[in-house]
Amino acid sequence: MDDRIREHARTLVEWSARIEAGDDVVVEVGEGAHDLGVAVAEQLGEKGANLLATYRSSELQRAYLRAHDSEFTPDPDYERALYERADSVLILKGSNNTAGSADVPGDVRQAHSKARQQIREARLDTDWVSTQHPTRAMAQQAGMAAAEYREFVYDATLRDWAALADEQARLKDILDDGETVRIRNEGTDLTLDITDRIAVNSAASVAYDSHNLPSGEVFTAPTDTAGVVTFDVPMTVQGQRVREVKLTFKDGVVVDFEAKQGEGVIEGVLETDAGSRRLGELGIGMNRGVDRVTNNILFDEKMGGTVHLALGSAYDACLLEAEIGTDSAVHEDLITTMGEGSRLTVDGETVQEDGQFVWE
Amino acid sequence: MDDRIREHARTLVEWSARIEAGDDVVVEVGEGAHDLGVAVAEQLGEKGANLLATYRSSELQRAYLRAHDSEFTPDPDYERALYERADSVLILKGSNNTAGSADVPGDVRQAHSKARQQIREARLDTDWVSTQHPTRAMAQQAGMAAAEYREFVYDATLRDWAALADEQARLKDILDDGETVRIRNEGTDLTLDITDRIAVNSAASVAYDSHNLPSGEVFTAPTDTAGVVTFDVPMTVQGQRVREVKLTFKDGVVVDFEAKQGEGVIEGVLETDAGSRRLGELGIGMNRGVDRVTNNILFDEKMGGTVHLALGSAYDACLLEAEIGTDSAVHEDLITTMGEGSRLTVDGETVQEDGQFVWE
Repeated sequence: MDDRIREHARTLVEWSARIEAGDDVVVEVGEGAHDLGVAVAEQLGEKGANLLATYRSSELQRAYLRAHDSEFTPDPDYERALYERADSVLILKGSNNTAGSADVPGDVRQAHSKARQQIREARLDTDWVSTQHPTRAMAQQAGMAAAEYREFVYDATLRDWAALADEQARLKDILDDGETVRIRNEGTDLTLDITDRIAVNSAASVAYDSHNLPSGEVFTAPTDTAGVVTFDVPMTVQGQRVREVKLTFKDGVVVDFEAKQGEGVIEGVLETDAGSRRLGELGIGMNRGVDRVTNNILFDEKMGGTVHLALGSAYDACLLEAEIGTDSAVHEDLITTMGEGSRLTVDGETVQEDGQFVWE
Repeated sequence: MDDRIREHARTLVEWSARIEAGDDVVVEVGEGAHDLGVAVAEQLGEKGANLLATYRSSELQRAYLRAHDSEFTPDPDYERALYERADSVLILKGSNNTAGSADVPGDVRQAHSKARQQIREARLDTDWVSTQHPTRAMAQQAGMAAAEYREFVYDATLRDWAALADEQARLKDILDDGETVRIRNEGTDLTLDITDRIAVNSAASVAYDSHNLPSGEVFTAPTDTAGVVTFDVPMTVQGQRVREVKLTFKDGVVVDFEAKQGEGVIEGVLETDAGSRRLGELGIGMNRGVDRVTNNILFDEKMGGTVHLALGSAYDACLLEAEIGTDSAVHEDLITTMGEGSRLTVDGETVQEDGQFVWE
């Protein structure tokens, strides 16, 4: 086994998920993530944790959804019971075809998603971590050779997370104390209210309320949004390409939208439910190890010098106790580049200019 | 998709597992059984059943078990809760290396098995069905080319099950009424008491208390056993080859054993617990579509003209209500060929001679 796969698994189990003896762990093994699955199983064995492996396959999902009449059972009891009792869910993404479920109609996908609200919440209540095994399909999506892509993934993933956590703590303090964030770049002038919301120092560990490996961002949940934002980074949303998505917000709600590509899929996202027209997340990328867009949200949104916003559900970690944030069956991230001429301010103070933080 | 894969999935879901709308179904997808998994997902979608896919991998299992200190948590709550609530478990075997966990020490394997008694019982309480996707590794184990092996598997699997069920009903009646079975062939003279036990017409459907696809056997649970049996069919038990296993029974318990190959693994099985030295099953193969030994118990034990006996646990379906049969963490089948000169009698009446049933 490639030593980096074992190191990836160790980082996931030890730094990210903080697995301990006796923990009930669900490992969701992607179609192409078998090798990482084996390495994670080994780490869980060493820890004395319990292992239940599920199979994450877009081809199974596609076949199931296309054959179904869309009258889905709400939150099937057996699956809910599993996740309600699990301590951790380790999601090993690793697709063999990133368009593997591209021909599932959006309304079917959304009906299925809506029927699984409680299961999704039970999963989010665990110490879950999502990570990515570098498959050929992911390399292809990134426009990279397989070996080159593996280098990219492990460079972004096997980092000094403790050091990055320290740097990110500075931005978290600014956002925790702040009330109004203003983001300006070409095509964007957006104001977000973050009063009384809690920023998450996303250092790729549940100990930091951070659930992605790699991570490297600070994020919070806006309470109100107004203005216009243009997402210049091309993305794959629900299996389909979107490009140059432009959203106009008024009183926290999307009142207008357009896209140069994939406008239909954006429309589908917005029409999922009441929460899907609001923002659930404002994230600021700080991982300078992610040095290019690879058409993979797990990496793209962490890139230093970018900002991302998510339509849909907010993470509880950003909310005061007993507060309810944006509630939705979806959480779709979109990214805008903070390049030359861009500015990010908090209560009028510049935090980032031309894509560089003031302390960099 | 090969039409036979879709037909296999349809037979599994409709004839074997009798899946209905709203059923909570766990699909256990083997490492190499992805294509069958996709076909089964499609069938479950058509039925309107619920789908949770788990990942069945000897490589994950091996890595986990070898790294673990063998102090396993008894019946982890989250996994038990899943299977206690599931209606059906569809096990899609399909190994990429049938020796994939060959170097896991027997005592570790047994400790793990012992710690999962309640989970195993919860699985057996569902409408579970085990079937086999024809992988290259399985073809190799059978000593067959991949395409040849696929023909073999589908010939044995896609049968007229209703017609075979009728033929098997004749043998079931004889065993249900009978008290003493005597089996004689070269190296075997064994007497089994089956008084008050219920024979199962194993026609590859839960409607017949039959949980293997393919099937094609009639089996019951002996209450007492005496004599000697030689299993001439070479087998793979717990990942290791065994050959010419000879067991001597007295008062229902194995009192002596030997093997030309794999004696150690047989010893390990026998020492698992009190029940593993007793017989849990007497099975009589009746599937004439299985025309050769392929080193795969799912097929081998169904072959017409063979008899198999299992060390360890008995199936509840063979017992009178409230009766407790042989209880064990293991169930290991071994097969003897009823060739020229062999005879199988029930209460002195010949049922099979020279491998041919009297009605054939």
